Amino acid sequence: MSDSATRLAPGATIGILGGGQLGRMLALAAARLGLKCHVFCPDPQAPAFDVVRRTTQADYGDENALDRFAEAVDVITYEFENVPAETAAFLAERRPVLPNPSVLATTQDRLTEKTFVANLDVRTAPFAAVDSPAGLAAALGRIGRPAVLKTRRFGYDGKGQALIRETTEAAQAWKAIGAHPAIVEAFVPFEREISVIAARQHDGQVECFDVIENEHRDHILKVSRVPANVPAALAAEARRIAEKIAAAFDYVGVLAVEMFVVREASAHTVLVNEIAPRVHNSGHWTLDGCSVSQFEQHIRAVAGWPLATPVRYGRVEMINLIGDEVANYGRWLAMPGTAVHLYGKNGARPGRKMGHVTRVFPE
Amino acid sequence: MSDSATRLAPGATIGILGGGQLGRMLALAAARLGLKCHVFCPDPQAPAFDVVRRTTQADYGDENALDRFAEAVDVITYEFENVPAETAAFLAERRPVLPNPSVLATTQDRLTEKTFVANLDVRTAPFAAVDSPAGLAAALGRIGRPAVLKTRRFGYDGKGQALIRETTEAAQAWKAIGAHPAIVEAFVPFEREISVIAARQHDGQVECFDVIENEHRDHILKVSRVPANVPAALAAEARRIAEKIAAAFDYVGVLAVEMFVVREASAHTVLVNEIAPRVHNSGHWTLDGCSVSQFEQHIRAVAGWPLATPVRYGRVEMINLIGDEVANYGRWLAMPGTAVHLYGKNGARPGRKMGHVTRVFPE
Repeated sequence: MSDSATRLAPGATIGILGGGQLGRMLALAAARLGLKCHVFCPDPQAPAFDVVRRTTQADYGDENALDRFAEAVDVITYEFENVPAETAAFLAERRPVLPNPSVLATTQDRLTEKTFVANLDVRTAPFAAVDSPAGLAAALGRIGRPAVLKTRRFGYDGKGQALIRETTEAAQAWKAIGAHPAIVEAFVPFEREISVIAARQHDGQVECFDVIENEHRDHILKVSRVPANVPAALAAEARRIAEKIAAAFDYVGVLAVEMFVVREASAHTVLVNEIAPRVHNSGHWTLDGCSVSQFEQHIRAVAGWPLATPVRYGRVEMINLIGDEVANYGRWLAMPGTAVHLYGKNGARPGRKMGHVTRVFPE
Repeated sequence: MSDSATRLAPGATIGILGGGQLGRMLALAAARLGLKCHVFCPDPQAPAFDVVRRTTQADYGDENALDRFAEAVDVITYEFENVPAETAAFLAERRPVLPNPSVLATTQDRLTEKTFVANLDVRTAPFAAVDSPAGLAAALGRIGRPAVLKTRRFGYDGKGQALIRETTEAAQAWKAIGAHPAIVEAFVPFEREISVIAARQHDGQVECFDVIENEHRDHILKVSRVPANVPAALAAEARRIAEKIAAAFDYVGVLAVEMFVVREASAHTVLVNEIAPRVHNSGHWTLDGCSVSQFEQHIRAVAGWPLATPVRYGRVEMINLIGDEVANYGRWLAMPGTAVHLYGKNGARPGRKMGHVTRVFPE
């Protein structure tokens, strides 16, 4: 059932695995287009449940629930990359799952992902697999220091990472990440972090949004700015890389590629840091600053509908509202030219993404 | 419970009476802001049901259902002006109903509405009440011909209207509108039709969108263009009229005023044709062509949140997809710079509004 050329009729139902803010914004985009969504999520408080009529609250391993979910929908997509492989495989036997589950297998593991990118002749930071303290010491010998040790699986927002400045810190770092299978990467003294959001259709059509510049605080995205302050040739190169990765996956939907911009001698170059096989926080600005949003592009692709050509409305800045920053929503509502998005989450825990605001300025 | 200064917290629930495309787009706007909606509608196929978690499918006279609905929500609004007066009164005893139900009483009756407008020293076409064939003959004698006979209540999209060119057509017209209590209006040889969408907050703050020019076909809105091709002074006058009407109602929410532009000697003037106490088809362009939509402005007002100041992104054209025109959605999806909205309705009956498209052009 990996029929990537599905073409949905208006009124058809898209199943979404995951009920966070990304699933919520996907469902809202589908609603504009006259498509229904059915959200599957284990969390009874999932914010996406509030914006759809059909929901399944069940574990990703609950085969009865998955079976009924598949019956109720026409095509299935996901809002996050850690969908269990068994869940994706079970569903893919019953309905088209887009992007195809092999993308999940590649991107759920940092080592597989980095190897995949390197095999496309796309540059990354030097990296090595690490399975033991001895292996870590050997790898540090090859790639040098400072370096970053990261678990191969289930890391996000800086979780499962440890910086190693000196060789003496290696043992501590190995413990800090829980002694899980890992990857060690050379620390990249980047000038800036950028991302490219690309949408790809089953026929190979690709539409990229303009290159985004990202600012993180405490390993969490805080501000995205568009366009990124990089030379045009470098922006074009970044988009080419995203297209190359999307084509190599035979990707259907929206994908984000995070990259570092580094200076080498007198020139700048980009290194791929991470692939997110989904809509991405750094693309939220498209909801207000562009003629089409990343969420609508993903829905169009998954529905087998033509992609739109994005036209940006100006210089755009997106600011995440993290934890109790959301309490200031009233100030943002009153700020001229500011679009406010709140995700309908219940508790403003530290580090939790509660909403975002977008500001569009004339260019 | 007519507390117009309610201020909702994020996560609060807005009850919406009516489940058509306007209710649907209101619910989508509320979702962006982290507010929940509960839709009440007698129609089991209501398109707004698909985009909210909480729904009530019941008759507007079902007091048990209304009671439970009121219990479940924090504030109540409506997507259409023909909410029965008894329904509004029943709910207003339990929760704030915004805009306040007295607005419904005025705008449900063309005679009361026109009288209300005339009492504000705002011009309309000459009109007279008609309750019998004899009364119609007398009224035609006073206001002249051609004239339009309209039922006082429940008319929309040209339904319940008859044009009278010659006195001999009067009896036929009276029959055609069903011999209901009516109003007869002088036919206005207008140059163009315009509308103003105004949002008003409980503290009196008003934000108008730019004046819209409307083109009807078979009495149904077909195309809206912004800005309207009218002199700046006339546009300002049109906005002043909308503000005056909103203030006179002590209105909270979005209201549309339809007007005719007529030439008198060498000058242009505007005559008010109709008030819609709700979001309006001619304001759909704001979803894509403006920094804030009419739907979000309405939700902000009803929530007691500050209004946004609208910034238009260019010259905008909105085209309704009526009846089987919706079958062409694929062509519109592929057209660069075009935003497509489908309402998720089941049958494309003739005259039924199935969706709309918006195109934004640089100014």
